[in-house]
This record gives sequence, C-alpha cells and structure tokens, in this order.
Amino acid sequence: MHELFTVLPPGDAFAIFGRGCSPVDRSEIVPLEAALGRVLAVDVVAPETLPAFARSTMDGYAVRALDTHGASEQSPAYLRLVGDVPTGVVPRVAVGPREAIRTHTGAMIPPGADAVVMVEDTNQTPSTSSGQAEIEVLASVAPGEDVLVIGEDIVAGALAVPAGRRLRAADLGGLAALGIVRVTVWAQPRIAILSTGDEVVPIGAAPGPAQVRDVNATTVTAIVAAAGGIPIPCGIVPDDAAELEASLRAAREAADAIVLSAGSSVSVRDLTAEAVSRLGPPGVLVHGIAIKPGKPTVLAICSGTPVVGLPGNPASALVVAWRIVRPLVRLLGGEAVDPDGLGDERELSAVLDVPVPSRPGREDFVPCTLARDAAGAFHATPVFGASNLIFTLIRADALIAVPLDRSGLAAGETVRVVVP
Amino acid sequence: MHELFTVLPPGDAFAIFGRGCSPVDRSEIVPLEAALGRVLAVDVVAPETLPAFARSTMDGYAVRALDTHGASEQSPAYLRLVGDVPTGVVPRVAVGPREAIRTHTGAMIPPGADAVVMVEDTNQTPSTSSGQAEIEVLASVAPGEDVLVIGEDIVAGALAVPAGRRLRAADLGGLAALGIVRVTVWAQPRIAILSTGDEVVPIGAAPGPAQVRDVNATTVTAIVAAAGGIPIPCGIVPDDAAELEASLRAAREAADAIVLSAGSSVSVRDLTAEAVSRLGPPGVLVHGIAIKPGKPTVLAICSGTPVVGLPGNPASALVVAWRIVRPLVRLLGGEAVDPDGLGDERELSAVLDVPVPSRPGREDFVPCTLARDAAGAFHATPVFGASNLIFTLIRADALIAVPLDRSGLAAGETVRVVVP
Repeated sequence: MHELFTVLPPGDAFAIFGRGCSPVDRSEIVPLEAALGRVLAVDVVAPETLPAFARSTMDGYAVRALDTHGASEQSPAYLRLVGDVPTGVVPRVAVGPREAIRTHTGAMIPPGADAVVMVEDTNQTPSTSSGQAEIEVLASVAPGEDVLVIGEDIVAGALAVPAGRRLRAADLGGLAALGIVRVTVWAQPRIAILSTGDEVVPIGAAPGPAQVRDVNATTVTAIVAAAGGIPIPCGIVPDDAAELEASLRAAREAADAIVLSAGSSVSVRDLTAEAVSRLGPPGVLVHGIAIKPGKPTVLAICSGTPVVGLPGNPASALVVAWRIVRPLVRLLGGEAVDPDGLGDERELSAVLDVPVPSRPGREDFVPCTLARDAAGAFHATPVFGASNLIFTLIRADALIAVPLDRSGLAAGETVRVVVP
Repeated sequence: MHELFTVLPPGDAFAIFGRGCSPVDRSEIVPLEAALGRVLAVDVVAPETLPAFARSTMDGYAVRALDTHGASEQSPAYLRLVGDVPTGVVPRVAVGPREAIRTHTGAMIPPGADAVVMVEDTNQTPSTSSGQAEIEVLASVAPGEDVLVIGEDIVAGALAVPAGRRLRAADLGGLAALGIVRVTVWAQPRIAILSTGDEVVPIGAAPGPAQVRDVNATTVTAIVAAAGGIPIPCGIVPDDAAELEASLRAAREAADAIVLSAGSSVSVRDLTAEAVSRLGPPGVLVHGIAIKPGKPTVLAICSGTPVVGLPGNPASALVVAWRIVRPLVRLLGGEAVDPDGLGDERELSAVLDVPVPSRPGREDFVPCTLARDAAGAFHATPVFGASNLIFTLIRADALIAVPLDRSGLAAGETVRVVVP
C-alpha cells in the first residue's frame, strides 16, 4: 500500500473538515425580489408593528362583546346598526353601547368595538318604526373574538428574520409586510471545479479509445449551484504533479473553495493528495470516508481554503458531492449546517420493500424508486444495477441511507431516504 | 349568504382543476449547463454505448479468471507480469494464459483478460532468474470480477432520460457522459400575479390608516419561481368589477395562467368570482377548498387559461400557493404531477411531540419546528401563534399536514410534515 488510508465515518469527516471552514465574509445588498434562497447576513428587526390597526378576520358586525352576553337563537340580542366600514376605510363612527357596525374581513375595527359577530350568527331585521336598522345577534362573543389586534403578528423592535436564514417565500413575505424592500445577504461562495485525469476529455469532445467524458464537472456544477454557490469552471488537468499544483493554485485565487474530482487509482490519489498538501497547511485532514459509493475522498484545508477531492467515478462523485460538497457550500454561504449533514437534503421516511444488505462501519447509499401506498406512506424499492453507475442513479428517485452501524436493512423496515 | 360555497377537499379540487390544465406547448433548446431544473420535452435516447470499453474498477492485475482458479494465501497462483496499462491508454499487449497486466481504476482492460485481481490480493515477486517479473495471486476471481463491461451503464438506443423529467444533477451527468451538450426542454410557464383590494398598497409604499402592504405578490412570486415558472408581475387592482376584468384580460394575454389574491370577504370574493367567470367558459370550477388556512380559494379555467383566486390573508395565500399553485406550475411546465399534490414538496415523517386538534373534513396545515433526536428521527412541535399570521410561518420550519379524515393528531404519533 502506498498511502495511509484512515477511513472516517462521513459525519466525523465532515465535522473535522467543517471546523476549518468559515463562511465567506463578503455581504451584498439585494432587492427583495432577488433574495429568494439567499442567506440573510444580519438579523432583521421589525421597524414597525403589524397589524398596525385592529382588523376583522370575518365578515360580520363589530360590537362590544358585553352586549352579546347570553345571546342565543332562542334569546337574541338586538343591536342598532350604525354604519358599515369597508376594507381600506378609516371608520368615522364609534360603536356605542348596544350598537353594531357592519365589518368585512380585513377591515379596520371601529373605536368602541372589541369583538366581531360573524354574519352567520346574525339576522338583519327590517328597520324599526323609528327608521333605525337593527341586527339580531344569535350567539355571544368573547372580547377579542375574530379580531386581529395591533401587534398580534409582530411588534416593532422584535426579531423579524434571523441572520443565517436561507430566505424562503414566507420570510420574503414577512419582510414585504414590514416594507423592507432590500436585504443584506452573504455573497454566494465561489467554488472552483476541477477535473483531473489523463483519460478525461470535455463533454463536447469525442473520446478516443480508453478515454471518457468529464461527467463530474457537470454534476458538481449542478450541485454547487443548487446549494447556493457560484460554480467556477476550471477545466481538466492531466495527472501531472506540476500541472495539478499550478491549476490548484490558480483555482484558489479564483474561489473560496476547490472541488476536484480525481481518478480513484491509488497512484492518482497519491498524486492528488500530495499536490493538495503542497497548497498550504494544514493540508489533507481526511483521506477516505466510510461511504459507499465514494470511499476514496480527500478533504483538506490549505491555508484557509477548503479542498474536496472527489472520487473519479461519476456515481461516487455525485454521492460524495451530496454528502459533503453540498453542506460545505451551505456552510461557506453563511447558513447553519446540520452536523449530521443529511438534514439539509430532502429527506423522508419510507417502508423498505425488500432487504438491503450492507456492511457495518460504512454509510451505504442505495439508489431506489419511491411509490406511495393508498395511505400516503412512501415505499422504497432498490433500483436494479450497480450503485457506481450513473444510469442507475438516473433511474432512481432517491437514495436509501443505510446507517453506519447496520449490517443491512430488513424488508418492512422504515428507513431514511434522501431525495437529492 | 350571497354565494353557493361548495367546499371540496384539496386533492379533489386540484384533480378537477388539473383536468382543465395542459402543459405549455412551447419548447426551447438550452445548453446542458443551463438545464438544471428544466423539464425535458422529449425522450433522450443514448446515441452511444457506455462504457465504450471494458474498464477496471480496481487497482490490480488484469488476468484470465481461469488462471486464478483455486488460488489462496496457502496456495497462490503465479502469473507472468507482461505489462502495465495506465488509464487513458490503449493496451498494446494481450493477456495470454498464465499472464497478468498491471491495471488501474478506470483503465482499459487488455484483450484476453476477463477479470481483475485487486492489488490487495497479490504480491509482486522479485524477477525470476529468467528476468521475468511475476505476481502471486492469493485469491481466485470469477470472470467479470472488478470489470465494468461494455454497455453496463447504458447501451446505444436505450432511453437515457425520459421526457417530463425535471432535470437533476444525475440526469445532467448522464447526458454529459453521452456527449449530449444541448437539450430540448419545455418553456417555463408564465404566471401572471395580480393582487386585488382597495386596502392594498405596494410593498415600497407607506400604508395609510386601514391599509396594508401587498405581501402576496412577493410570496406567490417566490413560489412560482421555485416551481419553475416565470412570474409576471401585474400589480394591484382595486375592488372594482370593470377594472378587475380589464386587468384579468390583460394578464391572460401576457401569461399561461393567472394567480390573483383577493380579499376574503364575501362581497370581494363574489366580485372576484364574477369577474373571473366573465373571462371565458367554463369559468369557476371550485369555490372553496377544505383546507385551513386557505378555505376561500377559487379555481377556474377561462377559455383554456387556469385562474387561481387565493385568499387575501398572506398566511392563507401561502399555504394554498404551496398546495395548489406549486403543482399547477409544475403541471403547466410539463412535469408529471402527483395527484395528491404533496409528493412534490419536501415531505418527511416526524414524531409529534404534543397533540394537535383538528376537525374532520378539512386538511389542516399546522406550522411547526423540527428537531432531530439522537437516533436521527425528526420531532415536530407546533409553533405557538395563529396559523393565519405570516410571522407564525416564519418561525416555523415546516407544516404538519393533518389529513382530511382526522379529528386531530395524538402526541407520539408519526405524522406527515411538509417543508415548503
């Protein structure tokens, strides 16, 4: 054996590696409409209180709750109808004792009123002899009923959205509600993507005999982009120590992290690990992770730049990119990352239809299809074909994650499934 | 009551509505690097076979399996070492009987060989007196062992990636492996987004008394974009039948579908439903869905254009946008959509920490936080606060989906959780 190959569980490997990785320290201000999926760089505090005025949550009548006390179908309360306040209009009349004002969902509650009786619990009676319209209230309401009070959503000065949050539709909605139309977000981390190998040609080229196309640049680019990074394409480097080192140095200048995919042969891995080590201290931290497919993975920090050396096999590279590169990009992007790594993925539970063999001491990712039964539960069926073939992954909906400590999964068992 | 309010379960509502919706019939050709998340418009058939040559999956020696028959540590087989074939190189020597050629992961298997003995199962002996290098083989291998044979990944003429697939990293990798650098994808559906309401002002404006900002345009835009649609902003329309109808007609010209958010008061809903109906036959198909929050939803098809009328309340609008608008956009975008609707979301199972009350006959979406226990299982805890407030959603990681037929969920129960 040419190398010291200390194989670590993926979670431990990422923990050791992640300790050396810091979020990019560049932020930028973007308009709200460009902020979906960006990571908030600073806490946003509510500049105002919402709702800013008491609002009705129902169509009905704004009343004093006390006036409805004891009201029922058998014994209605009778209230004088003294106005109608549409949405968007400031009431000009207050609700006095034994009075009601017509209200609508979203309309401002008139002064004096403290509750809304919904229209279904009322009858509007014909005008009385005095010419005054009246309503019959058929149910009692408590103070505050069907009223959204001032500050019920958020009060000025409260934390609206925390720093480190990858902004979702709801977060943008809350910011919009507060009139915040620009936000400070972390810059997207730039990830240099490099392929190595004498046998590797660009995807647009016709491979000669014994050559293959550079699949990993395409898949890693997609995973980096989906994780919120900016992929920086750095091409294909032959298996030559000097060229590799020069390319790595150039990549480091252009990017916040480097992902290279190298051949999986021991000689090429040695070459890669040595070139990476020469890039700066501390160098290679992890050489080999207990994952299938994907074992021959190198994780390094070189003078502050994280470097991931993926296996050359496209399916292995994909699995490690999901398990390691994706959380790395999110961490560099300023997001809080689940130390277990899987939590950031689409993950679900499924009932396993057939047994899956495995070996304790490594995480196995087994391509599977998913189907739902009548009750809505997911069922996972492994896809026929070797897990180290890319078209096996293409036929799959998801990957069954076989935990480190299991020697296989039984049919009927509920298992964790990751949808990449 | 002013309206006939036939409330349908969300699944039934979407099924009726979806039957009237056809995918956009426009396609476009995009380079592979711009195809992530786009929907393939035509089946892609493999133009070539992969791998194109038999490859080693290990570092070791290419041999004839027969020559290793019975080999063991105690009784090694001895083979003459007749060459070394690095990756990317075409072998110039064949493996004859009782011969071996050094091979490397990814290298072409030389003619004559039908298996690889991994290096760990061999010893290279010093050259014999004849000057001929030899290896000791310490284990027998079967024909095909550690060899990736021609066509094992995919054969020319086979379906590589099916039409209707939203392209993932793995799909792009498979296409790249085949040298396919451009793909035909469906055009992204254009979704007109309209807000209505006399009380609604743009998010950059300072609301007057009794006014609110247009939160829904922001959230719906985000959900449409995340689902693969192109949001077409159409502004705010007052609660006026003629203006609303004119705006809807203009929106229809500009887009493949219309999403409008209207107030939730009966009079505004009536106004909206009438304006939508005048847009073309068959008009309103669903008026009210059994979902909380989000009941006052209108679904219509008007002369072929799908129209979704969302409730005005921002939290309700968000939930219905997830449940209805998102699958609509995916359906229009050419993707196969799960009739149950939820399957396209990030969905997972979680153990409920406290009971959640509900009412049979409607789907409840209850905002919750998620945490993982030591065993990796998710636990869901409902977020304190009304589900119809946007900041309740912001504090939530996910929504607990209470099925239609349940009158509540018990503590300790495993429940479905949707991560929007």
